[in-house]
Amino acid sequence: MPINVTVWGENVHEQSNETVAELYPKGMHGAIADALNTDKRFTATTATLQEPEHGMTQARLAQTDVLIWWGHAAHGDVDDAVVERVAEHVWAGMGIILLHSAHFAKIFKRLMGTPCNLTWREAGERERLWVTSRNHPIAAGLPDHFELENEEMYGEPFGVPEPLETVFISWFAGGEVFRSGLTYKRGAGNVFYFRPGHETYPTYHDANVQTVLRNACAWAHNPAPRVSRVTDAPNVPVESALEPIEARGPRLHADGEDGFR
Amino acid sequence: MPINVTVWGENVHEQSNETVAELYPKGMHGAIADALNTDKRFTATTATLQEPEHGMTQARLAQTDVLIWWGHAAHGDVDDAVVERVAEHVWAGMGIILLHSAHFAKIFKRLMGTPCNLTWREAGERERLWVTSRNHPIAAGLPDHFELENEEMYGEPFGVPEPLETVFISWFAGGEVFRSGLTYKRGAGNVFYFRPGHETYPTYHDANVQTVLRNACAWAHNPAPRVSRVTDAPNVPVESALEPIEARGPRLHADGEDGFR
Amino acid sequence: MPINVTVWGENVHEQSNETVAELYPKGMHGAIADALNTDKRFTATTATLQEPEHGMTQARLAQTDVLIWWGHAAHGDVDDAVVERVAEHVWAGMGIILLHSAHFAKIFKRLMGTPCNLTWREAGERERLWVTSRNHPIAAGLPDHFELENEEMYGEPFGVPEPLETVFISWFAGGEVFRSGLTYKRGAGNVFYFRPGHETYPTYHDANVQTVLRNACAWAHNPAPRVSRVTDAPNVPVESALEPIEARGPRLHADGEDGFR
Amino acid sequence: MPINVTVWGENVHEQSNETVAELYPKGMHGAIADALNTDKRFTATTATLQEPEHGMTQARLAQTDVLIWWGHAAHGDVDDAVVERVAEHVWAGMGIILLHSAHFAKIFKRLMGTPCNLTWREAGERERLWVTSRNHPIAAGLPDHFELENEEMYGEPFGVPEPLETVFISWFAGGEVFRSGLTYKRGAGNVFYFRPGHETYPTYHDANVQTVLRNACAWAHNPAPRVSRVTDAPNVPVESALEPIEARGPRLHADGEDGFR
Repeated sequence: MPINVTVWGENVHEQSNETVAELYPKGMHGAIADALNTDKRFTATTATLQEPEHGMTQARLAQTDVLIWWGHAAHGDVDDAVVERVAEHVWAGMGIILLHSAHFAKIFKRLMGTPCNLTWREAGERERLWVTSRNHPIAAGLPDHFELENEEMYGEPFGVPEPLETVFISWFAGGEVFRSGLTYKRGAGNVFYFRPGHETYPTYHDANVQTVLRNACAWAHNPAPRVSRVTDAPNVPVESALEPIEARGPRLHADGEDGFR
Repeated sequence: MPINVTVWGENVHEQSNETVAELYPKGMHGAIADALNTDKRFTATTATLQEPEHGMTQARLAQTDVLIWWGHAAHGDVDDAVVERVAEHVWAGMGIILLHSAHFAKIFKRLMGTPCNLTWREAGERERLWVTSRNHPIAAGLPDHFELENEEMYGEPFGVPEPLETVFISWFAGGEVFRSGLTYKRGAGNVFYFRPGHETYPTYHDANVQTVLRNACAWAHNPAPRVSRVTDAPNVPVESALEPIEARGPRLHADGEDGFR
Repeated sequence: MPINVTVWGENVHEQSNETVAELYPKGMHGAIADALNTDKRFTATTATLQEPEHGMTQARLAQTDVLIWWGHAAHGDVDDAVVERVAEHVWAGMGIILLHSAHFAKIFKRLMGTPCNLTWREAGERERLWVTSRNHPIAAGLPDHFELENEEMYGEPFGVPEPLETVFISWFAGGEVFRSGLTYKRGAGNVFYFRPGHETYPTYHDANVQTVLRNACAWAHNPAPRVSRVTDAPNVPVESALEPIEARGPRLHADGEDGFR
Repeated sequence: MPINVTVWGENVHEQSNETVAELYPKGMHGAIADALNTDKRFTATTATLQEPEHGMTQARLAQTDVLIWWGHAAHGDVDDAVVERVAEHVWAGMGIILLHSAHFAKIFKRLMGTPCNLTWREAGERERLWVTSRNHPIAAGLPDHFELENEEMYGEPFGVPEPLETVFISWFAGGEVFRSGLTYKRGAGNVFYFRPGHETYPTYHDANVQTVLRNACAWAHNPAPRVSRVTDAPNVPVESALEPIEARGPRLHADGEDGFR
């Protein structure tokens, strides 16, 4: 059974900027979904900011194995309730891949617990990505480095927590470096941040970038059923304790009462 | 110069529950501050939910090296703007120590990016904490394990990200285990979660627990000045690039324009 | 194509101790291989200490996707050259699973860089393993905890580096806890340590334990071809630098010379 | 009481290579010790390969709080017994800082459990180190980046385990990147690898590099007394179990017997 990938695009500059529209006539989300659908392992569809609930309904999320997120100009327009809903699906096991300017997406900041800031420069300079974790599943089939002749620069320090693994580090012609591929886990959900993808350059048409995206979708997929009631904090009554104990001392809670939260 | 510790207590059950009031006549926050002030390395003061801005003004946070947080019944009453303010101070370098039921405090969930849930049982059972990281600064002066004869049980799975280090793991008489001492870093701020401290038991009068609290304050203290403008994402103009480059390709941003966020 | 698993057993107590021989007539390695071979994903075979090169020839390792290692009484009899050979295969991408008393196997200590010590008690006491990472692939299909009625106790502190992930923590009837399932990565090789499996108890006949072993083999398998020349440190001559540079300053090495090691 | 730092130098090229001898008339170890001794927090002395037991006697290690290690041409001449002795002191709490070509030192490979390999080029090219962990104690007082106009290049992939923290990443003029400042913990010992320091360049006279070395010594120092018997695996007899249990089932070991190792 193929992995269901939903590619979320904010779909703003594709509509308003001629360069972007020409590079990505079906939107960046469309180009990414097409690249995934060349591989029988995946069934990729798209969703955008402009759809009701930004296309991120409970039903849609429930059938999404891996969510790819690209946003930039309209982070602030994403509804907080939708962000929380997406976060719960990640905790319950949905994979998520955050691309480029999604470092400032509400959902990424929500999952990281940090500012996720960086330095930047839009100069079409050369970026060279180095694989720092040889034979990592996300780097499968890649050379030990690859180049994007025109990219926006992102520079360290990148305001994120220490990752589980650093998979790529970028070299920029202007003199900066950046941790461009980072893995995290949040609950049962695998999280991957991948740096490249400024909308005025043809980055998502690059073969190596497409390889990373396919690898990342396979890596992020957790085949287990979603964890149910993923934010619950269940009480374990004394009488069902695994070892025989007796209740002792003063109590705050009556039998069967919920905890505070 | 001593380390400035602010002990934040929600101060609810101390006012409404006779057992808690008797155990902690100056509040749990008061008892913790007293325990720290026996050590010349610290100057500890308290703040509570009921104060204006919950006592967490910019001025107060700016002079706090390490913040200790205990909350339980009134997590929902903590103002979101205050939570964000505290988070920014952590990112900028303020240490923070979360105690017991603060696993569900807004500030902890904000910093972790996960549900922070667990299982629980209020039965006054025996808890035994094992040091899993020998000679960790937070475990200095402790035996290899110590017991609290009456504590609330917290059980795994604990809904937090993988920590930097696991310092303590608890054994409970009823059959559960729990990662009771976990370190994290968020920006320049050191974060420590410590499990014990149910309000109906005399946990914060325990000598070993007080040792942990003192150690944790020393460990969490980052002597560097706060990072200024900790959420900024500064543009680096082409003309000030560290290596000579020329702007190329189509652009989205005009010179000097801010990035999107 | 099935995953090739080689189950290595030291095969000493199976020959010398009546209890062990009765519990595991085909050896512990035989029982484990049988448990894996019930699953079409795997082709499991065995190797033992007594074979030439302990059965760990280059050819055998080259066709092994995942190596399972159980040893106890004869750690010292394992040849250092074989240990180094196994380590190189792990770095190049072979998965490895270390069981129980293999915490003191030369290969585990070699990969960890630490003493890998612990406390222990052979009293047939109850062990309860808690899943600490919900829906981790290694915990697929397991309940949130499971019990082994008779096991040897291993207690913290466990002298290993901080793991990538803690998957299981054990509770023991005698009052100890232990991190019983830990993941690591060494080069391209996935490493899993799993605690249960004292030879005088029927642990490897337990259904939950067998589930863990199958899950762990699938998790540890890195489908990429082995990294070739995995310990090399290649020189990159100036004339093939990716960006044009000129050699400057005094030099230690002549052109084409190898580095020191 | 000042922190006792021992700076170990292999002291080979200082004796055989004119450039190195001129740059470091007291040896690289001497220059580093001098830089530390300008700071009252430290008492730094030196030891070299040529001394009996390479200067690494039990007595010397016992009084060393932090060991700095620089080696290159003579890694193979370091006695294995000395390497193991140093490793035991690290596990017991001695800090260790590995510099530059010490990536291939026996002690570093012993502590990492990996090949520790990389790519390299000796071309005197520009290296720019970026701080990736703002306000990390090891980066105290540094700008957000600093340059070394002439350095040897080291390139990724660097064959080490995922670190606890990445503190520095280097940009090289020839197009490579490298994780130049990495923290680890092995037992109670703090470990820091720092990349710069090729012997034909004046790197250890650089003010920023000296700041890193001083910061790293303060960071690596664990003030707790050494862990005694750091590799022991003590038996806990049934009769001294913390919770009352009775021995059950078949046994391998007689009372009071040592475990296998």
